[in-house]
Amino acid sequence: MAGPTRVVVIGADAAGMSAAHQALRRSRALGRDLEVTVLESSGHTSYSACGIPYWIAGDVDDQQDLVARSAGRHREMGVDLRLEAAATRLDLTRRVVHYRDGQHAYGQLPFDELVLATGARAVIPDWARDARGGLIGGMHPVKNLDDGATWLGLLGAGLGDGEAEGRPDGRRAVVVGGGYIGIEMAEALVRRGLRTTLITRSEVMSSFDPDMSARISAVLTKAGVEMITHSQVASVGATDDGGRVREIVTTGGQVCPADVVVLGVGVTPASELGAAAGLPVGRSGGYTPDARGQLADGVWAAGDCCEAIHRITGEHVFVPLGTHANKQGRTAGDNLAGGDVRFGGVLGTAITRFAAGEHEVEIARTGLSTAEAAAAGLAAGSLVTGGTTTAGYLRDAAPIATKILAERGTRRLLGVQIVGGSGAAKRIDTAAAALWGAMTVDDLAGMDLSYAPPFATVWDALQLAARRLADRLESDAVRPG
Amino acid sequence: MAGPTRVVVIGADAAGMSAAHQALRRSRALGRDLEVTVLESSGHTSYSACGIPYWIAGDVDDQQDLVARSAGRHREMGVDLRLEAAATRLDLTRRVVHYRDGQHAYGQLPFDELVLATGARAVIPDWARDARGGLIGGMHPVKNLDDGATWLGLLGAGLGDGEAEGRPDGRRAVVVGGGYIGIEMAEALVRRGLRTTLITRSEVMSSFDPDMSARISAVLTKAGVEMITHSQVASVGATDDGGRVREIVTTGGQVCPADVVVLGVGVTPASELGAAAGLPVGRSGGYTPDARGQLADGVWAAGDCCEAIHRITGEHVFVPLGTHANKQGRTAGDNLAGGDVRFGGVLGTAITRFAAGEHEVEIARTGLSTAEAAAAGLAAGSLVTGGTTTAGYLRDAAPIATKILAERGTRRLLGVQIVGGSGAAKRIDTAAAALWGAMTVDDLAGMDLSYAPPFATVWDALQLAARRLADRLESDAVRPG
Repeated sequence: MAGPTRVVVIGADAAGMSAAHQALRRSRALGRDLEVTVLESSGHTSYSACGIPYWIAGDVDDQQDLVARSAGRHREMGVDLRLEAAATRLDLTRRVVHYRDGQHAYGQLPFDELVLATGARAVIPDWARDARGGLIGGMHPVKNLDDGATWLGLLGAGLGDGEAEGRPDGRRAVVVGGGYIGIEMAEALVRRGLRTTLITRSEVMSSFDPDMSARISAVLTKAGVEMITHSQVASVGATDDGGRVREIVTTGGQVCPADVVVLGVGVTPASELGAAAGLPVGRSGGYTPDARGQLADGVWAAGDCCEAIHRITGEHVFVPLGTHANKQGRTAGDNLAGGDVRFGGVLGTAITRFAAGEHEVEIARTGLSTAEAAAAGLAAGSLVTGGTTTAGYLRDAAPIATKILAERGTRRLLGVQIVGGSGAAKRIDTAAAALWGAMTVDDLAGMDLSYAPPFATVWDALQLAARRLADRLESDAVRPG
Repeated sequence: MAGPTRVVVIGADAAGMSAAHQALRRSRALGRDLEVTVLESSGHTSYSACGIPYWIAGDVDDQQDLVARSAGRHREMGVDLRLEAAATRLDLTRRVVHYRDGQHAYGQLPFDELVLATGARAVIPDWARDARGGLIGGMHPVKNLDDGATWLGLLGAGLGDGEAEGRPDGRRAVVVGGGYIGIEMAEALVRRGLRTTLITRSEVMSSFDPDMSARISAVLTKAGVEMITHSQVASVGATDDGGRVREIVTTGGQVCPADVVVLGVGVTPASELGAAAGLPVGRSGGYTPDARGQLADGVWAAGDCCEAIHRITGEHVFVPLGTHANKQGRTAGDNLAGGDVRFGGVLGTAITRFAAGEHEVEIARTGLSTAEAAAAGLAAGSLVTGGTTTAGYLRDAAPIATKILAERGTRRLLGVQIVGGSGAAKRIDTAAAALWGAMTVDDLAGMDLSYAPPFATVWDALQLAARRLADRLESDAVRPG
C-alpha cells in the first residue's frame, strides 16, 4: 500500500490513548507513516476513573482535574480523536469499522490496524432497574465521569434535608459490594456525613484472605459503617412518591433505610463488538490478546476489555485496572507500529484505603490469596505477622499486619496481603517486585531494604513477616504435619 | 569435648544479640548443647541508635522506649549477658578472651566459638578536643544512648537563655557533617528552635548524585538551615570562660556562632581487638568475614565492625547500619551453631528525612550513585524524572524526583535515588528488591505495582522513571553519542 498505515482505536481512555500515542512515537522513530483515528462513544477522554470516589468525597476541586490530557491536547499531538462517536460494528473482512457520530450520522472507517480498547462497564443488577429498565432513582454505579457528576448531584441535592425527608438522623446510604469501589465509596459517604450500610456477598474485600478481611471490616465498623456480610440485595423494599429508593431488603430479610445506593458489584468487559465479529474472548467475556497485545491479524486489544495472563499461575484472569490498561495499550501501540515488546502479565497487585476521621485502614495485596493458591494446586505455607509502620517508640507508629504465602518445597513467594494504618500499604510494591522476579521467601527476608525510625522498624514489617514464614517453612519441613 | 559448646560474643547491640539468640535457637533445633556469654563494655544493650536524633527532637518519650529488649529479658531467654564488661585482649591460640568487669576486676573467658560484634565508634576530629584530649564543652557526637542523654542535657540546660548568654537571637547550633546524622540532627535542632548551620565537606548527602543533593539542600535552606558546603572546620574560634564552644571557624575562614556543635563526621569500625590478634581487616579497618560470617576458624564477626560485600560490584564496602547488623548477627549465630545460611550482601540502601514545620524532604537511595558506578567501571545511563507521590489532583500530592541508573547494553538496574515530599521515599524498597534480583530497567518499568489515587500516580513515580530511562537507553543505542 502506498499511503500511510491507517490505525483505528476504539476507546479513548487509558488503553486506547496509550496505544495511539505509542504507535505514533514508534512509527516516528522507525520513520514510518502512520495515522491514528480514535473513536470514543462518550464525551470524555483520558480521565482517572479511580479518582471518582475522591471527587465525590470532596478531595478533588473540579471534574477537569481528573482529566489527565484533554481532547484538544491529544489532537495537537497528532491523534484524530472523535468524541461521541460510537463504533457499532466491525467488519474484519472488509477491514472497516462502522460507527455513529455525535449527530447520529453513520459512517465507516477503514483500517489497516485496529485496537479494541472499549473498557469495562458497571454491572447493573436487575433489582436496581425500574419497570422501564432504567435505574431506580437514588441508585447509581461509580464508573465514569458522568457517574461522578450524578453522585455529586445526588449527594448535594438533599444533604442536610434528612429531617424534611423523614430521616431525623440524617440521610442513609447503602453501598452494595465490598470491593475496592465499595470501600472507597463507603469512605466518601461517611466523610460526607451519611449513615452508611455496606452489603457484601461474602466478606469485605473478598480478594483477601478472611483473616485479613476481618481486620478491614473491624475498622469500617468502628467508623460507624454497618456491615452486612454474606448477604445480597433481594429487592428494593420501598420507593417514595417520585419513585426514588427508600429501603433495600437483603436476602436475609434485613431492611435497610436507603436514600442513595451505590452499585458497586463489579464490572464486565465491554467486548460485544469484537465478540460479534468472532474475535476470541475468555471465560470473563474479556478479549484474550497475546503478550504483544494481538488478538487476530491486524487486530489488537488492550485494557479493561481484556483478560491478562497471571504471572504466577499462567492462567487468564480478568483484572481491570488502569495500571494494566496503560501498559497494555502502550505495548499494542508499539507493536502495531513495528516495535516488538511484551506485556509481562499481572500479579493482581491492588491497593486502597478507608479513611474517615480518626479511622483509617490501608489495604493492599499482590500475588495469590490462600484460595487462589489452592485453586492453582499450589501447596502454600502462610503466616500473619504483626508489626508497626514506623519504629514502635515514635508516636506516629501505626499497626501493620502482613500475611505472606510461599510455596512449600520451592519456598517461592506466592502472595502478600497488607492491612495497616497510615503508611502501611505501599510496601506491597516491594513484595510485587519480589514476585515479579520469582524470588523466594528467603530472598525477601534477606534483601537490603531501607530503615530509619520514621519509615520502618529495623526489620521492615514485610521482611519480618518473610523471615518468620521462612523459619516456619523450615520447621514444617523438619516436622511435616 | 564433653561439655556444651562455649560461645562468647563481644558486643551486646544488634549484631551481638542477634547472633546470641539465633545461636541458641539453632542449637535447640538441632538438639545441641550450647551456652552463650556476651560481654558489653557499656551499660546498654539492644537499643535503637537510629532513634537517638528523634529522642533529642522530642518524638520519643523516654530513653527506655529506645531499648528493644532489656538486659533482664535477654538473661531470661538464656543469654549470660555481662554489662560494663570490656574485652581487653583476644588470645586465639589459647582460645580465651581477657576482659575487665564493672568492678575493674580482670578475668578470662574460654570459648569454642567467638563472635566479634564490637560495632563502630564516632570519629572525633582533633579540633574538637581540648588540651587534655577531652571534648570541648558543647560539642558531642550522636552515637549511643549516653550521647543522646548528653544532648538532652546540652539542649535542656540553656534553652531560652540565649539573651543571658549574649545571643539575643537565641542559641546557635552548628552541625558538622552532611550525612544521615547531620540531616537528622539538623531536623532535631531546628525543631527545638535553635538557629542552625550545617557544614559539610562536599555536598549534603554526598552519597547521592549532586543534582539530587541540590534538591535536599534547597529544602534545608528554606527551613532556615544555613548551609556551608565544600568546607570543613578549621578550628574552634572561641570558647567561653568555662571552656565551652562559642564559635567555629571554617577552612574558608567563615566564623559561625556555636553554642552546641554536632560531631557528625562519620564512624569507624571498632576492630582494634581483632586486628591486634591478627584477624583480617579491610581498607576501612572493618573485619572481612565471609558470607557465612566467619573470619577465622571458630571466629565470627557481624555488624558495624565489619565490611560487607556490595551485591552489585562484588567489592568490600563499609556500610554500618542496623539492618545489616541484625542480619549478619543472625547469620553468624546460625552458622556457628550448626546452621548453613548466607548473608546476601548489601546494596547501600538508605533512607531518611528532614522535617521541620512545613518544610519536609524524604530521601532514599539504593545501589550505585553515578560516581560509584563510574568507579566500578560500569557504563551507566541515567535520568531524573519528576512526578507526584499521589494522584496530582489530590490536595496532598507532593513532588517526587526519581533518579535511575542502568547499565548501557545489559540494561541492568544499577541504582535509584529518591528525593521528595511526605510519602515519597519508602518506595526505594521496590527498587532495592529489583536490584536484589538483578532485574533490568525494563523489568521495573513493566512490573505490576500498586495504584490508587491516595498512594501513587497510575504509572508510579518509580515506574515512570524506569520507563523513561528505558526509552532513553533505547534511543541512545540507536543513536550513540
